[in-house]
Formats: sequence, structure tokens, C-alpha cells
Amino acid sequence: MRRPIIGVMGPGEGASSRDRDTAYALGGQIAQRGWILLTGGRDRGVMAAASQGAKAAGGLAIGILPGSDLAAVSDAVDIPILTGLGNGRNIINVLSSQVVVACGMGAGTASEIALALKTQKPVVLLNGTDASDRFFTSLNPNLTQIATSVESTVQRIQMLLQKTNPSRICNE
Amino acid sequence: MRRPIIGVMGPGEGASSRDRDTAYALGGQIAQRGWILLTGGRDRGVMAAASQGAKAAGGLAIGILPGSDLAAVSDAVDIPILTGLGNGRNIINVLSSQVVVACGMGAGTASEIALALKTQKPVVLLNGTDASDRFFTSLNPNLTQIATSVESTVQRIQMLLQKTNPSRICNE
Amino acid sequence: MRRPIIGVMGPGEGASSRDRDTAYALGGQIAQRGWILLTGGRDRGVMAAASQGAKAAGGLAIGILPGSDLAAVSDAVDIPILTGLGNGRNIINVLSSQVVVACGMGAGTASEIALALKTQKPVVLLNGTDASDRFFTSLNPNLTQIATSVESTVQRIQMLLQKTNPSRICNE
Amino acid sequence: MRRPIIGVMGPGEGASSRDRDTAYALGGQIAQRGWILLTGGRDRGVMAAASQGAKAAGGLAIGILPGSDLAAVSDAVDIPILTGLGNGRNIINVLSSQVVVACGMGAGTASEIALALKTQKPVVLLNGTDASDRFFTSLNPNLTQIATSVESTVQRIQMLLQKTNPSRICNE
Repeated sequence: MRRPIIGVMGPGEGASSRDRDTAYALGGQIAQRGWILLTGGRDRGVMAAASQGAKAAGGLAIGILPGSDLAAVSDAVDIPILTGLGNGRNIINVLSSQVVVACGMGAGTASEIALALKTQKPVVLLNGTDASDRFFTSLNPNLTQIATSVESTVQRIQMLLQKTNPSRICNE
Repeated sequence: MRRPIIGVMGPGEGASSRDRDTAYALGGQIAQRGWILLTGGRDRGVMAAASQGAKAAGGLAIGILPGSDLAAVSDAVDIPILTGLGNGRNIINVLSSQVVVACGMGAGTASEIALALKTQKPVVLLNGTDASDRFFTSLNPNLTQIATSVESTVQRIQMLLQKTNPSRICNE
Repeated sequence: MRRPIIGVMGPGEGASSRDRDTAYALGGQIAQRGWILLTGGRDRGVMAAASQGAKAAGGLAIGILPGSDLAAVSDAVDIPILTGLGNGRNIINVLSSQVVVACGMGAGTASEIALALKTQKPVVLLNGTDASDRFFTSLNPNLTQIATSVESTVQRIQMLLQKTNPSRICNE
Repeated sequence: MRRPIIGVMGPGEGASSRDRDTAYALGGQIAQRGWILLTGGRDRGVMAAASQGAKAAGGLAIGILPGSDLAAVSDAVDIPILTGLGNGRNIINVLSSQVVVACGMGAGTASEIALALKTQKPVVLLNGTDASDRFFTSLNPNLTQIATSVESTVQRIQMLLQKTNPSRICNE
């Protein structure tokens, strides 16, 4: 029985301190549920904060890196996957996650949400803007959920995991 | 002196007949200006219509295909680039185009616009929705333009080409 | 301190029973040293056998899959990274591994060894042919080593890890 | 009726002057037959020489670049496809070509030949070494041919095009 992989996507350099705080808390909750965290892996913004939250909670953090060496990897990433594909790696973040959570908003994050919807992955939006919430809901109302707290995000993930693959759930 | 490459992105199966008509006219205008057309290459929706418009006007159409064989390629594509990368090929569409035009809207198209903004490419939105126009403008107002006709789209492309690389313009 | 990731590459459908037995033993040894195993992840040949060996020894097995869903993944893979990139994923296998071990030979395996040498990764060849041993040694004698047993392969990996990153070694 | 695309792969920085001279002549012959040339696109070695040969003969040269901007592109490339995928772009070179010609040898070239054989593309080896000729022939004797001159290479390409797709041949 494999542990579910939950993707947390969000701005790097452009993350607000609120985005980073939320991502840290979310990473911790993901780890406490026994789920594996997957991020873009760089030592910046939401990626780094979520990984640090997971690490502090004793979890496992995977990073899917755009680069080809370990220089830019967050110290909190346990398993760095070096792709060398630049932004071409965004599709891997999405395909490898059972649920994609966006924490904050930016062009890279928007590309990952759009790729998730294109490939039929459920998406939970957290710390988005009015414009982003409205747009992604209009693209696919069935796959898109808007959450307003880390707690409700985690509840939504749990329900999505039960729905998509009842026999593969693992929570403590 | 290389001919500019103009990317036209838009829905495949989900394209409306208005999207296809617009894409056909746009492909023709791109060809008449001496620019090279680049699309996602499949025999569907905006990709196929834009390529057919370019072909009818004697232009050159490149297709960047998600698959690894020629089966799904539009007959109007002169140069099929087979990537085998699935939706991972979207980044190539964007990086290889001097200007990215979105004609219509869908999750795949949204991913390409977002990747364009992420990689600092100018974007012209045509046949979008209120929600998409508002969202992408909010992501990057400097790189995003909204056009309301094929003619104004072509004018915007021309101005963008002059701005980004004055010595590389080629029009008849 | 991150655990080293060791890549084991080899034929899928074309693996001999000797290749599979060797891969199983090698996966077990990698796990026992506390290293993480990385393979191409499919439920075939060397990939599956190495992952099963690692699993039986209580280790962690990552699979970098060519496809975009879980259908073809080996049950022994703990962490499936779904790329959707087809053979385009081979570069990720190589970049993400500190050492690349080839067990057996085939066209896909050869592409991974060549990409490893291109990106300056050390390679250990096991169960190769005279022609493959000679060719890859001629391409880069400094990065290429030929091993004749699982034991000597593991010794070579250990020496390479000490050489490339003395502070990151982790063995029990 | 689409013009065939012929891939010419070979060393960049490591190309010998013989490799470059051969590539230049081969690029010219490909252009004279009305075929489109495809290379890795950089301004180095076999890629640059083949593109220059094609350009001098009035042909069309496509370059599939590892980078994401035009800085490293050969001036002789008419159509630069910017992938941003690093060596991950090698699979695209191979899939987009009807026939893959290797001119000279190195680790990157070897990865392209191996990927070609993996994806069932015919390969012609020119200016290889004894070790490379022997190895790739052993991998797949049906798909691998060894040529000893530009003229015989072109004859082999022509025969392969007639065999793989009799209705798509275009020569002057």
C-alpha cells in the first residue's frame, strides 16, 4: 500500500510571508497524516516553507527540481529529483501528485493548476486572488475547490483521496 | 535574418466554431506577413484551423506535437516536431514563439499563457472570457494584451516584434 | 544529511533471468547500505527486480515512470514519479542519481549510460557485453567502471560516493 | 506532401575538423535533395557545420535547442525550436527525424543513436569508431547501417525513405 503524494505548488521568489506561513503549516499537516509532500524543490518561497513544515513534523519531502544539480535545492527536501527541464518540469509535479494544492498565486503556479485541470487532477486553491479563484473555477468547476484554511484544505484532500482511490488511503 | 515565429494556442477538441474561424483568419494573416506559424500541431480545433489558414495563404506551419508519431498531425502542418512529451511539450510552444497568441480558452491554453508569462513572453488574448482576461491581466499587466479582432491582433504582434527585436522584423 | 540516490538501469521486456537476479541482489544491497534506489519504475525486467530486492530488504524505491498514470508501475516502487515524457524521462533517471549502475544492456539502457557520461555522472557497468564495455570505456574511461559482481559493484558505488561528496555519505 | 526531415547528430565542442567537413557536405546534399535538415541547433561542431552546408545549398535547417533563448543558436539555423530541456531535448531530435545520421561520436551523439534505436528509427553511422560501429550494430543490426562516405549516406537515406514511406518521398 503506497502512501499518497500531495503536491503543494506556489510562488518561489514572489511568495508573501502569509503564503510561506500557510505552506509551512500545510506541509506539517500533510506529514502528520502520513502523506508524502511533493513540491518544486527549490530553496524559495512556498516550496521551501512546505518542505520545512513537513520535515519538522517528521515527514518525507520530495522536490522536483528545474535544474540539474543540487545547488538550488531546499535543505528540507529529502528526495531531490533533478530534471534539468526548467519549467518543463511543472507537468511532472502535477502528474505525480494525487491532489494538487496551490498556496498563493503567480505565473508558474497558474501553469501548474492549469496543467492539473488539463490532466484531470483535483485542485485545491488556498490564498488565491478573486481573479484566480474565479478563473480556475470557470475552467473546471468539478475539479476545482477553494479552501480558506489549512484545516479545510486537509479535509478536502482527505475526501479527495477517499474518492479517487479508497483502497490506497493511508492516514494515522 | 530569421523570420519571426508566432505561436497560436487554443483549444483542440473544445474549440468553438468561432475560435476555429478566428484561428483560420489569424493563420492566414500571419502567413501573409511572412511570419512562421507555430501551433500544437494536432488535427483538432484552433491548432488545425490556424495551420490551414497559414497553408491556404502560402505560409509555413510548424506543429509541436505531444505524441511520437505522425498519426495525429494536421495535414496543414509543414514541419511536425514530434516530442513524445505529452502536455510537457507546452513549454516548447511558448519558448519557441516570439509572441504567443491565445485564441479561445481551455485548461491547456491557460497553461501555455501562464508558461509564457512565467518565461517573460508577450501574450495577446483573443476570444477569451471575462474571467480569463481579468486573471491573466492581473498576473502580468505588462506582458498581457487583450485584442478584439484578428486585425488588432496582427497590429499588436507587429508592434511587439518591433519592440523586442527591431533588426529581426520581416514583413512583406 | 540526505541519503544518496543510486540509479539502477537495465532492460525491461528484454532482461535475461540473470539480469533480473543480479538486479534483485543489487537492489537489496543498496537498501542495506541505507541508500535510496532509483529505477525507471515499470513492472518489467531490471526495474522491477531491483525494486523488489530493495523492498525485501526494507529500503526505499523511487520509480521515474515514462507514463502518466499508475497502471504500469511496479508494486515494489514506493514513490512513483509520473513524468508522461516517454523515453524523455531517461535524462531524469541519470541526473537524479549520484551513481548510475547499468545491469544488462539494451537500447534504452545504452541511452541512459550515454546521458550519464554526457552529464559527468559516474557509471558502473554490470552484465554488459564485450561490445558495450569497450564502447562506453572508449567514450569516457574516467567515468566508466566495469564490475563483475554485485559485491564489487557496491564497493565501487561506496568509493564513488566518498569521492564525489565525502560529507553526504550515509551507510549503516 | 510533406518534405522528409533528416536528422544529423554529432559532437559539438568535440567535433574534429573531418567531422565538420563531412557534416557540411552532408547538410548540402540533404538540402539539394529537397529534404529538411534537423540538428541540435547550437553554434558548434557538427550541428553548425551541417546547418551551414544546408544553408549554402538553399535548404531549410531546423535546430532543436537545449536552451531557452536564441543566444547559442547557429546563424545557419532557419527555424530554432527552443526547448529549455537541456539534454532532455535529444529525444525530440530523434522522434522528429525520419532517418538519424550520426556524424562523429561522443556521449551526446551516442545517447541520440541509442534513443533512435529504442524508438525504432533507422540510423546511419558515419565517421564512427570501431567500438561505436560494433556496439550499435550489436544493439540492433536491422536498424543500424554503417556508411563510409557522404554519397553512400545519402543513398542509404533515400532507400530508407522509400522503404518507410513510399508516398512521402520528395526529391528533386
